[in-house]
Amino acid sequence: MQNLKLASIGKKGDRTKIKVGDVVIGEGFVVVAGPCGVESEEQTLRTAEAVKAGGGMMFRGGAFKPRTSPYDFQGLGLAGLKILARARELTGLPIVTEVIDPRDVSWVCEFADILQIGARNMQNFSLLKEVGRAAKPVLLKRGMYSTLKEWLNCAEYILAEGNPNVILCERGIRTFETYTRNTLDLSMVPALKELTHLPVMVDPSHGTGKLSLVEKMCLAAIAAGADGLLVEVHINPCEAKSDAEQQLTPEQFKRLMQKILKLNHCMSDPLFDTSITGGDQR
Amino acid sequence: MQNLKLASIGKKGDRTKIKVGDVVIGEGFVVVAGPCGVESEEQTLRTAEAVKAGGGMMFRGGAFKPRTSPYDFQGLGLAGLKILARARELTGLPIVTEVIDPRDVSWVCEFADILQIGARNMQNFSLLKEVGRAAKPVLLKRGMYSTLKEWLNCAEYILAEGNPNVILCERGIRTFETYTRNTLDLSMVPALKELTHLPVMVDPSHGTGKLSLVEKMCLAAIAAGADGLLVEVHINPCEAKSDAEQQLTPEQFKRLMQKILKLNHCMSDPLFDTSITGGDQR
Amino acid sequence: MQNLKLASIGKKGDRTKIKVGDVVIGEGFVVVAGPCGVESEEQTLRTAEAVKAGGGMMFRGGAFKPRTSPYDFQGLGLAGLKILARARELTGLPIVTEVIDPRDVSWVCEFADILQIGARNMQNFSLLKEVGRAAKPVLLKRGMYSTLKEWLNCAEYILAEGNPNVILCERGIRTFETYTRNTLDLSMVPALKELTHLPVMVDPSHGTGKLSLVEKMCLAAIAAGADGLLVEVHINPCEAKSDAEQQLTPEQFKRLMQKILKLNHCMSDPLFDTSITGGDQR
Amino acid sequence: MQNLKLASIGKKGDRTKIKVGDVVIGEGFVVVAGPCGVESEEQTLRTAEAVKAGGGMMFRGGAFKPRTSPYDFQGLGLAGLKILARARELTGLPIVTEVIDPRDVSWVCEFADILQIGARNMQNFSLLKEVGRAAKPVLLKRGMYSTLKEWLNCAEYILAEGNPNVILCERGIRTFETYTRNTLDLSMVPALKELTHLPVMVDPSHGTGKLSLVEKMCLAAIAAGADGLLVEVHINPCEAKSDAEQQLTPEQFKRLMQKILKLNHCMSDPLFDTSITGGDQR
Repeated sequence: MQNLKLASIGKKGDRTKIKVGDVVIGEGFVVVAGPCGVESEEQTLRTAEAVKAGGGMMFRGGAFKPRTSPYDFQGLGLAGLKILARARELTGLPIVTEVIDPRDVSWVCEFADILQIGARNMQNFSLLKEVGRAAKPVLLKRGMYSTLKEWLNCAEYILAEGNPNVILCERGIRTFETYTRNTLDLSMVPALKELTHLPVMVDPSHGTGKLSLVEKMCLAAIAAGADGLLVEVHINPCEAKSDAEQQLTPEQFKRLMQKILKLNHCMSDPLFDTSITGGDQR
Repeated sequence: MQNLKLASIGKKGDRTKIKVGDVVIGEGFVVVAGPCGVESEEQTLRTAEAVKAGGGMMFRGGAFKPRTSPYDFQGLGLAGLKILARARELTGLPIVTEVIDPRDVSWVCEFADILQIGARNMQNFSLLKEVGRAAKPVLLKRGMYSTLKEWLNCAEYILAEGNPNVILCERGIRTFETYTRNTLDLSMVPALKELTHLPVMVDPSHGTGKLSLVEKMCLAAIAAGADGLLVEVHINPCEAKSDAEQQLTPEQFKRLMQKILKLNHCMSDPLFDTSITGGDQR
Repeated sequence: MQNLKLASIGKKGDRTKIKVGDVVIGEGFVVVAGPCGVESEEQTLRTAEAVKAGGGMMFRGGAFKPRTSPYDFQGLGLAGLKILARARELTGLPIVTEVIDPRDVSWVCEFADILQIGARNMQNFSLLKEVGRAAKPVLLKRGMYSTLKEWLNCAEYILAEGNPNVILCERGIRTFETYTRNTLDLSMVPALKELTHLPVMVDPSHGTGKLSLVEKMCLAAIAAGADGLLVEVHINPCEAKSDAEQQLTPEQFKRLMQKILKLNHCMSDPLFDTSITGGDQR
Repeated sequence: MQNLKLASIGKKGDRTKIKVGDVVIGEGFVVVAGPCGVESEEQTLRTAEAVKAGGGMMFRGGAFKPRTSPYDFQGLGLAGLKILARARELTGLPIVTEVIDPRDVSWVCEFADILQIGARNMQNFSLLKEVGRAAKPVLLKRGMYSTLKEWLNCAEYILAEGNPNVILCERGIRTFETYTRNTLDLSMVPALKELTHLPVMVDPSHGTGKLSLVEKMCLAAIAAGADGLLVEVHINPCEAKSDAEQQLTPEQFKRLMQKILKLNHCMSDPLFDTSITGGDQR
């Protein structure tokens, strides 16, 4: 793809692997789970324990919430980050959390293991440049209106500043369909795999916005070749201050993980190593 | 969903099964394969043999081709249908072929085992009513601009005329993304499964328009819970008069079928029978 | 634009003019008005009289209504066409009415002065070919998902069959915006004017789906260079069986016509004859 | 519209007027013109003089350019702002310029008369809050993927911080159409007028991305009821470092202004004061 210097896959096909604590993204399959927002210490710590118990490998939660209305819950900010740090102490799970302001990047890095750039900020170039100078990996969500080309160029913005650790995350695009909150575009997984060396994750919770569709889209993402999943889990989804419709209970998450492991095991068969068109897929 | 009388899934959750020759759609997994268009007897019969040899269960091919330009290849018409009938004789595979004019329905039924309604004709209500009165099952593709609700209402048009055998086929919607020909919306598979008793198939060839993405989207469709796939196969894709970019060679199809069988076998594990939200998924 | 043989504007820039009764489309400005559907003789004749009295130049009404659900009002069919014929007798206004089935084209021509192809049938190629062989002009609405290129190719389908009298009608495309029913794409007016010699009309009633927006979009269409408008008028919009939200009362139509005439008069100033880039715009 | 406290139009229908130098936005019609980017002192000053000579009322130019690729021209930054200040000295025209980073707002205010928030930053809430605390009016462009509701909520973010002077600017949304760069959604003009008291401008240069369509879309925006226009003008469009395809020459701008004035004069007729549905439109 034109213009990409650092994000393009090379001739050898080497792929980026990102080590975060004990987890290596791009090697094996990674499930990141947690609530949409950090709402309280109890809600967060109990959810983190449930994620750990269910088999989640990283914990996610938002301390800064970009919301459509200025009058909606905007997140706990620093207090939320401190709660996330406690969740890490408690469970040992690395923390993924969103940063929305370039002025916050340096101090959010004190708490986060991975910095998330949300869909609305995908082309917030000031923020991209700032996280490109940070020492933490960046999880870059696709903008709900953005093409594959634009998305990869945003990864390039981060790489060009010197941060080689970028994870791309498909989270659904905006279309005319209203039954789902967004249209999860799983074809981006193999499309990215043929264009870039960066790991690719999928967020079916935001991608569908419907609890009843999350499981199947998780499985489909695995079959499509994703390196990992982001799944929203809440100790009590009905009381969530945001995304109440799409968060799993701990029990649902546990059952989902069993299926994820089963399917991953199946997909690890050497039969799936080579594509039907001849290319190496690992 | 409001307005649906016949297409809605009932309280018992019974699902429609459609027997066509030895194949039962909605029971086990069905792969329909064949060229975009019937171009010649040799191309068609050789492709049909390859589909059969590769493990395809039905043969598809277009005798009427709805094309953007009036000056593009429009299909062989009756001559094409006769070739398809010979392909069936040769291989025993049931034939799926598109009908585009209500005046053709009765005589196309003489050749076809399943009538396909293409994406451009999803809301061609005269045609829907006509196939609703035909004695053959109907494969109803989603319009590239159509919502889930509109699509199900088109199935209702067919059902309301007395034909109970409708198969829904997701084939991608039109979005702003240009890397893929369409955006394959796999979330429709579980969405349809919770709304209707009709079987659901997926067409990754049109859904992506890119050979390199077809395999992964086939596997993702299986994991999403589809009842079957439509895959374009051509004895010599480079020389195809339409869709040259997305048709598989017989060898590629054979390798794809191995993966499809492997993944289906995995997904037949009882673990996948119950959804994480508690519902029966079979 | 590639592939267009007959629809492309020539080097001389000559434009098609279509004479229907006393009206010449492509010369002066034409307002076509009437109800979404022909519901009864009284509703239709009274509306036709109101359209005539208000200054409308043609009368539109649907006898065949393509509806999302099979259980919605589908139009009066032949009975509706007979009512339209009476409306013409009564008012002298030419009749524009939709045809949705290729089998109906020949006999609908007995009643209609202009055959309308609706948005859902823009790529119903059987229907396009049939109206291409009819002796009446065709008003071809843009499909709600269709590109400019596809639309012009559909005009080409009609022209290629020998019917030179095609009018293009922008009626809004489907986007993510839900405040309006469709997104009226007025940029298509000058875009079509630079590509084709065919006249271009605009339908703000369907294009917005909101009564409160119709007036301004009518005026904007005139300023954009359209050759005419389609406006929905109903003697009693609240009781309309379809499109109740977007039809004007006779009184509103009358006031709209005054503004249309005023703006047209202004736009007839020679200042507007030449484009700022130098081209002749007449 | 739910959630809006400050942006909603009140019962009296009073509208916000924003005085900037000698210009009052929301009273009379305002044309803002200038190059996409500030490239050099000569290019900027000569264009500013041409805008002034042609009848433009404000001067726009970007010192910070948000670009798809990190390797494209990113603007001159502070040096560009100083050039804009000189353009203001030279011509007396107030300056509209984009700010893309919350850290820049305070010092960009030293140079700008109106702060522009670009489409990609519409939901950059940190930036919105920052300009909400600034002492300069804000021109808020619609995001290319944003609904009317989201857009108005972004205005609400600014108003809620204490800045009452927000101008909304429609600049086209992203759709499947590729002939135009974006789809200019003029129906937003009357839609906004019925929901909010804030002034509404239109940017046909970005909205179409095609020089040949700019003129007609300018006129259509006026007829739709816009309070002003943003038009890209460049002393030498062929050599522009961005948006070369859509910038007008000074001569074209001059001719455009004549038409704008003519049409505005026509639209000032009292006939257009009251809407056909009875509401006051002024």
